[in-house]
Amino acid sequence: MAQFSQKVTKIGVYTSGGDAPGMNAAIRAVVRVGIAQNLEVYGIHNGYVGMMDNKIERLQLRDMANIIQRGGTVLKTGRSTEFMKPEGRVKAAQHLKAFGIDALVCIGGDGSFRGAHALWEEHQIPCVGVPGTIDNDIYGSDKTIGFDTAVNTALEAIDRIRDTAASHDRLFIIEVMGRNSGFIASHVGLAGGAEEIFAPEGNTTVDKALDRIKEAKSRGKTSSIIITAEGQKPGRAYDLAEAIRKKSGIDAKVSILGHQQRGGSPTAADRILASRMGAAAVDALLKGYCDIMIGTEGERLIQVPLDLVTKHEKKAQLDLISLANILAT
Amino acid sequence: MAQFSQKVTKIGVYTSGGDAPGMNAAIRAVVRVGIAQNLEVYGIHNGYVGMMDNKIERLQLRDMANIIQRGGTVLKTGRSTEFMKPEGRVKAAQHLKAFGIDALVCIGGDGSFRGAHALWEEHQIPCVGVPGTIDNDIYGSDKTIGFDTAVNTALEAIDRIRDTAASHDRLFIIEVMGRNSGFIASHVGLAGGAEEIFAPEGNTTVDKALDRIKEAKSRGKTSSIIITAEGQKPGRAYDLAEAIRKKSGIDAKVSILGHQQRGGSPTAADRILASRMGAAAVDALLKGYCDIMIGTEGERLIQVPLDLVTKHEKKAQLDLISLANILAT
Amino acid sequence: MAQFSQKVTKIGVYTSGGDAPGMNAAIRAVVRVGIAQNLEVYGIHNGYVGMMDNKIERLQLRDMANIIQRGGTVLKTGRSTEFMKPEGRVKAAQHLKAFGIDALVCIGGDGSFRGAHALWEEHQIPCVGVPGTIDNDIYGSDKTIGFDTAVNTALEAIDRIRDTAASHDRLFIIEVMGRNSGFIASHVGLAGGAEEIFAPEGNTTVDKALDRIKEAKSRGKTSSIIITAEGQKPGRAYDLAEAIRKKSGIDAKVSILGHQQRGGSPTAADRILASRMGAAAVDALLKGYCDIMIGTEGERLIQVPLDLVTKHEKKAQLDLISLANILAT
Amino acid sequence: MAQFSQKVTKIGVYTSGGDAPGMNAAIRAVVRVGIAQNLEVYGIHNGYVGMMDNKIERLQLRDMANIIQRGGTVLKTGRSTEFMKPEGRVKAAQHLKAFGIDALVCIGGDGSFRGAHALWEEHQIPCVGVPGTIDNDIYGSDKTIGFDTAVNTALEAIDRIRDTAASHDRLFIIEVMGRNSGFIASHVGLAGGAEEIFAPEGNTTVDKALDRIKEAKSRGKTSSIIITAEGQKPGRAYDLAEAIRKKSGIDAKVSILGHQQRGGSPTAADRILASRMGAAAVDALLKGYCDIMIGTEGERLIQVPLDLVTKHEKKAQLDLISLANILAT
Repeated sequence: MAQFSQKVTKIGVYTSGGDAPGMNAAIRAVVRVGIAQNLEVYGIHNGYVGMMDNKIERLQLRDMANIIQRGGTVLKTGRSTEFMKPEGRVKAAQHLKAFGIDALVCIGGDGSFRGAHALWEEHQIPCVGVPGTIDNDIYGSDKTIGFDTAVNTALEAIDRIRDTAASHDRLFIIEVMGRNSGFIASHVGLAGGAEEIFAPEGNTTVDKALDRIKEAKSRGKTSSIIITAEGQKPGRAYDLAEAIRKKSGIDAKVSILGHQQRGGSPTAADRILASRMGAAAVDALLKGYCDIMIGTEGERLIQVPLDLVTKHEKKAQLDLISLANILAT
Repeated sequence: MAQFSQKVTKIGVYTSGGDAPGMNAAIRAVVRVGIAQNLEVYGIHNGYVGMMDNKIERLQLRDMANIIQRGGTVLKTGRSTEFMKPEGRVKAAQHLKAFGIDALVCIGGDGSFRGAHALWEEHQIPCVGVPGTIDNDIYGSDKTIGFDTAVNTALEAIDRIRDTAASHDRLFIIEVMGRNSGFIASHVGLAGGAEEIFAPEGNTTVDKALDRIKEAKSRGKTSSIIITAEGQKPGRAYDLAEAIRKKSGIDAKVSILGHQQRGGSPTAADRILASRMGAAAVDALLKGYCDIMIGTEGERLIQVPLDLVTKHEKKAQLDLISLANILAT
Repeated sequence: MAQFSQKVTKIGVYTSGGDAPGMNAAIRAVVRVGIAQNLEVYGIHNGYVGMMDNKIERLQLRDMANIIQRGGTVLKTGRSTEFMKPEGRVKAAQHLKAFGIDALVCIGGDGSFRGAHALWEEHQIPCVGVPGTIDNDIYGSDKTIGFDTAVNTALEAIDRIRDTAASHDRLFIIEVMGRNSGFIASHVGLAGGAEEIFAPEGNTTVDKALDRIKEAKSRGKTSSIIITAEGQKPGRAYDLAEAIRKKSGIDAKVSILGHQQRGGSPTAADRILASRMGAAAVDALLKGYCDIMIGTEGERLIQVPLDLVTKHEKKAQLDLISLANILAT
Repeated sequence: MAQFSQKVTKIGVYTSGGDAPGMNAAIRAVVRVGIAQNLEVYGIHNGYVGMMDNKIERLQLRDMANIIQRGGTVLKTGRSTEFMKPEGRVKAAQHLKAFGIDALVCIGGDGSFRGAHALWEEHQIPCVGVPGTIDNDIYGSDKTIGFDTAVNTALEAIDRIRDTAASHDRLFIIEVMGRNSGFIASHVGLAGGAEEIFAPEGNTTVDKALDRIKEAKSRGKTSSIIITAEGQKPGRAYDLAEAIRKKSGIDAKVSILGHQQRGGSPTAADRILASRMGAAAVDALLKGYCDIMIGTEGERLIQVPLDLVTKHEKKAQLDLISLANILAT
């Protein structure tokens, strides 16, 4: 955690990396709390792309009307390779300074925070991070903005597929998002009554899954659902289906939920989390704290140095998977 | 259309082929109207599979409690290759006669109706069909049970994906169900504001789609959505994305909505349609009509000979696609 | 139906009366089809209120971005007593003529169409009506924009209440919208499995309802739901509950669904209906037809003279209520 | 917290008080974890009513199939005045002992836990409580089962009403559940962007609310929403509307969300919470702990003596209301 002493009068806010439902609620909180504290607030479009391209504009209270319930991000997001280099960040810092922006709120994930940390280290532009990603895999915060919505969206799809699985006595393999972490998979699997869950952190195997499914069948269960995280690239569900077919002759159906998990109107929990975090980020800057992320620990908000956030991994709770296994008997 | 004179006292009901939301409402209507008319009603499980395997049981009023709002089919469904042969149907007819079942209500699609027609022709078991399929591609009925729900389910997913498409300024290709017909694609495309719609009945091309997208871009649109029907097998969206990438360098994201389109609690329209059709099917049998399907023509229910139904194709309205093209400018 | 010969170059569009989901899709269709036909399109705010106050502005293609999925109406709506008088309409006509607006599309209900008809009669401003009201009680059209969404919204609430009714073995009386007509009540009642439905057009009584509920109880049903249309003012459900308590001692719970039935993202059917009707309204004006409403007859769009529309009443189908009664046994 | 030494072999589970979404997931967890631990599990119907009436039956794994996603409670619930007296509890204890039930899991709220505590004190029947109530007002647990679902259900209704409020430039007063606590009101108000929130714990007044609304109007806001908890009996929203009309002449519309807030398919968070708590309750009994409730503290499950739970009140966080006030500017 770092502290700074210059007075904050103009702040910039941007969303970066993958979009997540609730980002708009966070932007709204930054803008409205900022203005309530007599700050000028500037929106930077398309994340670091807009910082490079000088796509920056002042935001007013009314610009935030009617956005709390909308998915995506009104500031749009983007990924910039140019910003990844020191020369790029020199340019970004110049743009920010030309606007007189003296502090930033960055809404995004790991990669976005690394950029924010670099801006502070290299150009002394104070920044506070707000964790916005459906994957929930940010170290230092129990929850990230968008995770609750994504899990509920995936769950709705799974509830629907179960209707069909049950009507046809079938095995379904459903692939959810979560490249490096099994948060979505484990939560959705437990909530959706899945027979088996494949998560990057887990250690189940096709053999174990088949044992479980056969056991369930012997007890009268006629249809089953396996949830898998997407793995390094989408399509892992097809590989699983093929392995199951080879080992058992069972013809599993595959469904890849895909990008719909990112969108949609945010749940109450995500809107509240985003509102609280956005407000806390502005408060922290006004108190002279920076190079931190706002996180949650239970019901409380905490401040975590960006350095810690980006250097550690947060792993999904395997106990949810064990519980799901017991409960889906 | 055929008529028969024997008195109906015991009827059987079954669901066959792909499941569709609203099938339970139709079963409920058959059972409850049947019992209100002093009939005994028997449920045949897993469609023709259960007819072959003698999985038949009497249904009572209370068995239908609390199912109108549920997706899938409580009678389950199935596909039987054995029943496709005359010997198979001999066996099926024997089972039905052993139970004293003197008429049938078949809830399903084209293939299911062909089976019902054969039972009438070969074994004089009167049957009335009720069109239940999410694809809406049954000749003789404006609407089929499950179509409205499937379209709304797909539309919700598309609304969500649009959030993400807009946040990243991206082109998305979304694949919906509809192997041989573009009903879902055209309805969802118009309702979802898609820039282009690929339907089996349509004549658009990758070039036309690209023209449209570039034109839209020139007018300030930064994200676009293409809807495609799945084609002969799922995955057509990937082929389109590849063709677009080759021709234009644009990197489109793909989302295949898949089986979730079959499930879910039926919409009001599907529950009402299913209730009315199920009731009408029993009424028709009681009046001595058979070898027909109950269809809709606007708000009215009509009777259509099964022969006509299975020999004609029903094609999606291309005017919805033209309208969608104009409106997505 | 009337015809006019002047060339149309600038059209105005407005929403009037109660708002209904899908109105935005209709506005979008009017604007985009109009512009595609080289018309200038003007939006009149707050219905006739804006016509009186000169709140009129030109609409462009991009103004219609991202509204097809939104409830309410971006043009807002209103009720004007001033416009109800001839002097008021003189003023309205002057404002329209000052903008050069030579034809109108009015999206609303009965009352709104009477205003449009008067503008044509008194000031020769041609107008085409598009029926937008959740009540579905517009003569000349099978369906109105917003009805399908309202029914589904009410149905979701009823499905939820049934969970609670069943858990407590209770009788619930649920009040839905529909001041003068029982369309919502009858559709929601049938789709929601209600034991009894009170509609303005119906002839059931508290005694009949109690008989039905007691009969259901004797067959093992432990919870029941009664649906009632709101009647001349909201609160009819409380009167029914009181009457039931007095006659039977049964303590019914009351739930009044209220204004949430007006809002929400429109269903696919409403978006498609609105898109088709909006487009057809512009087409009709371009062909010189006016003083008509676009209606539906089954799947087809038709044109109905406004005079007919406003002078006749459309009544809910009581056969849906009879069917609901049989099916809820 | 108490400990007991007798071996547990047969446990009973029941739901009591108001029903809450997720109760079925908790029952499922108790039954399946219990059976996995070689216990016999008995379901007691209608809460203490069934304990008095001996409505108790053994539950098997398959009885729990397909209920995790359903609202309400398959064991039904009830309120028993007889059980409130010591003589009643003597009878209840006799019934339990006749079945050989040697421990209980009680899913419910404050009142239900008082009953469980009395059974332990007077009859040494060990019991573990699981907090199930949409109100979230149970001391000792951050979250209760059903709260998250109820908040999201109310939020959906509010999002819909906002469409209508915005289309008519109106003030709406929406009444949510929460007799003695403002948890639902404060969460829904913040997430729904409400201008003012009336909670039992709060200290806002009609005058303050009017000031806020006028201020918002002066900044260009044309519609507003006030959220109120129901207060000691439903209908507080009407009183507020009347007070506002008298003081300001503003004609506010009222909507009382009512019982739909109790039902519906539980959210992912509620299913997971219920699954974890149900499992933890069985674990606690197997370890010889009783007279406790399973609660949450952040992400962790904790054990809280029932005595503490029933003697303290848990109050809603007023800071959410302050934040909502700032963010709705």
